[in-house]
Amino acid sequence: MKIIRTVEEMSNISGQCLQNNQIIGFVPTMGYLHEGHLTLMRRAKEENNIVVASVFVNPLQFGPNEDYDAYPRDLQRDERLAKSVGVDYLFCPTVQEMYPDEMTVEIKVKKRVDVLCGRKRVGHFDGVATVLVKLFSIIRPHHVYFGLKDAQQVAVVDGLIKDLNLPITLRPVKTVREEDGLAKSSRNVNLTEAERQEAPFLYQSLVEAKERIFAGERDPDVIIAGIKQFLQNKVNGKIDYVEIYSYPELKPQTRLTGKIIIAIAVQFSKARLIDNIILELKGGM
Amino acid sequence: MKIIRTVEEMSNISGQCLQNNQIIGFVPTMGYLHEGHLTLMRRAKEENNIVVASVFVNPLQFGPNEDYDAYPRDLQRDERLAKSVGVDYLFCPTVQEMYPDEMTVEIKVKKRVDVLCGRKRVGHFDGVATVLVKLFSIIRPHHVYFGLKDAQQVAVVDGLIKDLNLPITLRPVKTVREEDGLAKSSRNVNLTEAERQEAPFLYQSLVEAKERIFAGERDPDVIIAGIKQFLQNKVNGKIDYVEIYSYPELKPQTRLTGKIIIAIAVQFSKARLIDNIILELKGGM
Repeated sequence: MKIIRTVEEMSNISGQCLQNNQIIGFVPTMGYLHEGHLTLMRRAKEENNIVVASVFVNPLQFGPNEDYDAYPRDLQRDERLAKSVGVDYLFCPTVQEMYPDEMTVEIKVKKRVDVLCGRKRVGHFDGVATVLVKLFSIIRPHHVYFGLKDAQQVAVVDGLIKDLNLPITLRPVKTVREEDGLAKSSRNVNLTEAERQEAPFLYQSLVEAKERIFAGERDPDVIIAGIKQFLQNKVNGKIDYVEIYSYPELKPQTRLTGKIIIAIAVQFSKARLIDNIILELKGGM
Repeated sequence: MKIIRTVEEMSNISGQCLQNNQIIGFVPTMGYLHEGHLTLMRRAKEENNIVVASVFVNPLQFGPNEDYDAYPRDLQRDERLAKSVGVDYLFCPTVQEMYPDEMTVEIKVKKRVDVLCGRKRVGHFDGVATVLVKLFSIIRPHHVYFGLKDAQQVAVVDGLIKDLNLPITLRPVKTVREEDGLAKSSRNVNLTEAERQEAPFLYQSLVEAKERIFAGERDPDVIIAGIKQFLQNKVNGKIDYVEIYSYPELKPQTRLTGKIIIAIAVQFSKARLIDNIILELKGGM
């Protein structure tokens, strides 16, 4: 695995791969890699000749109250992990390298942002979309990999690629779970032992909701109330949100139909956990 | 020359050209082609294996008070002219083809826009940048051609390409002029005969300014005042603006240095003419 630190070198390598008609898979990350990232990289390895991963903590996507400097970093560990799953090129540019001058343009995300976690993170997805277009332009991948754990990010990237006609195929990768159903996350280590026992109920609340929907329930308010009640009975964490939307449009429905997402966020004492499921409903039921 | 009407076909053709390691030159236009466009296409023909031109009147770049429907269109004539200068593919998508769904994202141009003609056209360059990123993604050109007659557009595209790391080289093409110096424009036909006699003084005012600068004058206010006086003496049209900035940053200077643009706009009875010159000054003088 080769570590690449400059835009120019990365761009040249990709250009060479493309001239040789190689298929490039790309996994963008902010580093501090965990099992979720490695799953994306393994998937990319299966489906491409060349796997590029990036480690870049993007200042543009941090809000004024979010601590960019405190974001965890461990590049040596990231290098070891990326290498272990067969990444060919690890692109680790500096901020100066990615933003050498004051930006004259930015990508503004106008839809799919003022719901779920995005509601409180104004401008966050503008920063995400801007750095992604830059990374896509430098690396020019055929396939790009994102985890469905952050389903809103996947929805935003889906819109970004389609609306700008980017010549890239989005590969959403389903959430990796512990045996008890808890979605894997680097935040899980911040749960107390008691909270860790409760945490699988997040996923269970979604599975219960799925069963009610497949049994015929189509009123989102009924489903949301059911999930809230389930969670209130089972966990001591504070419910941040329980929301249902069409997917990937993230528009509210009065009657559930088509492809939908049920997404929840629960604040525990020292960890805020999110989870979601995406369902495909037959129309007209 | 082949006429292409769908995004999918255009994208496939470009993909095939790139696989064959051909060099693609691209000339984006809104159609109603004139000598300026043809100059860009001829230049593209010299420098590339494949020349793609687009004819697309982009609704996104028209303001609420600008008449998108009244913009002149003559596709048959455009086809004939493009063919005559050796364009290989003329991409003429419908609005539905370019914007099949409500856009979830747009490119926001934050710098280089609130001066010159952009000052009164709020949001215009957002629409230009958005459609260009789409066209660039579909066509994936190596070189893209723009006329320096619209130097602000060239400055915005320069920022767009650099800041988003687009793998494209911008080829600005210098303004084509009549023998008497008047910049060629489809609007020149709207000048009265008397106005047509006066119109070359626009360029002459810029040439006079250049001579004063090369003689040592470095105060932009002095240069601007000189141009205004010259124009007021020579033409009956109303001066819209006379402005000097660094180029392509389009930032005001207190003392002229480096690369600068002097740009003017004059409103005649039925035609608003613009012109500019770009100068490279040695530092420290």
